[in-house]
Amino acid sequence: MRKAVVLLSGGLDSATVLAMARQQGYACHALSVDYGQRHRVELEAAVRVARALGAVEQRTVRIDLAAFGGSALTDNSIAVPIQGVQKHGIPVTYVPARNTIMLSLALAWAEVLQAEDLFFGANAVDYSGYPDCRPEYMRAFERMANLATKAAVEGGRLTLHTPIIAMSKAKIIEQGVQLGVDYGLTVSCYQADAESRACGVCDSCRLRCAGFAAAGVPDPTRYYTAHA
Amino acid sequence: MRKAVVLLSGGLDSATVLAMARQQGYACHALSVDYGQRHRVELEAAVRVARALGAVEQRTVRIDLAAFGGSALTDNSIAVPIQGVQKHGIPVTYVPARNTIMLSLALAWAEVLQAEDLFFGANAVDYSGYPDCRPEYMRAFERMANLATKAAVEGGRLTLHTPIIAMSKAKIIEQGVQLGVDYGLTVSCYQADAESRACGVCDSCRLRCAGFAAAGVPDPTRYYTAHA
Repeated sequence: MRKAVVLLSGGLDSATVLAMARQQGYACHALSVDYGQRHRVELEAAVRVARALGAVEQRTVRIDLAAFGGSALTDNSIAVPIQGVQKHGIPVTYVPARNTIMLSLALAWAEVLQAEDLFFGANAVDYSGYPDCRPEYMRAFERMANLATKAAVEGGRLTLHTPIIAMSKAKIIEQGVQLGVDYGLTVSCYQADAESRACGVCDSCRLRCAGFAAAGVPDPTRYYTAHA
Repeated sequence: MRKAVVLLSGGLDSATVLAMARQQGYACHALSVDYGQRHRVELEAAVRVARALGAVEQRTVRIDLAAFGGSALTDNSIAVPIQGVQKHGIPVTYVPARNTIMLSLALAWAEVLQAEDLFFGANAVDYSGYPDCRPEYMRAFERMANLATKAAVEGGRLTLHTPIIAMSKAKIIEQGVQLGVDYGLTVSCYQADAESRACGVCDSCRLRCAGFAAAGVPDPTRYYTAHA
């Protein structure tokens, strides 16, 4: 069975991508990255999701991006935006070079495992303001990766799969439901509480909630606010 | 003054590159990466070198690459080669995706600092067996980086400087001596002892020692072996 490294945050998108990779027949090694984000319960969700979807193993690598600052997700002095606060430009929830760092770690593990496939749940629709969610960035990373490794020098060919990059949230949810993903196990909220309950008002919650509504799928998310 | 992020391992090459960046007038932010390498005294050397060469600040980011295994530098079950053991192919001291990960971290810090210059002491002469020391890899990383960041989207242009990539070890040492680098502060050995003394027999020691000889510069390295 072909091996793949799947980046798994514990959120809705990456859970769907793991299910897709499994359906394509890959033996999936799930990698979660603890980069000092506020939403730490996501990492606990990643462990649950990996188990539920039949990953071969799940590992969490810790790296202290908070040391550099610059993002609402790692810097406690920057507030997480609530709905309607920011309409233009790159959100304050953007973490500098985050996807490059996470993909680099996935590349390292893939090389050790002799896996030639990486799966990544980037989405250029919802995260259109994030430079490192764009297809042209993904192609440039893949090209660099194919010059970076021992496997590449020895004739291997690494493929970076981003199967949901152009999908709406509703479409992602429809795909996941078909593949049996239990979204009740996932956490998307930027400021979930210690019991994995969501705020219902941050950008991530709004996107997720609207996605379930548009897909016509009951929202399994538990909220700690009086969310309708 | 323009800011630059300089990757600083504590070894001879990166110390020279820091001196070069300083001479070109950059305010240098030195980044060291603790990736679970055996030669931990290198990290202590990085702190000394940054101070001696006038870096604005030095930070060490810890990341546990040993969790993935696959290299003699991070995996205690793989022996560090001594002279003559390996003549062909990629050395066992190659760390999977190491340079990609270190450059990604430098990119993240550069974005937070609003620096547009990265300096990296990669060398394609001594490390000709390492895929991620080649000029074509560096160009691909730079291209990817210029699609990855908020700064790039907003019109900035990141430059990856690799000023010693094509230099012999002797040439690097000559340049550094001219710029006042005290190589007695640096540690290159793959298995230095707790007092920063070198083994004299690993590949890195051999390259370094031969470099001083070829440059006609007295070798300031302290050895724990009966090294001539």
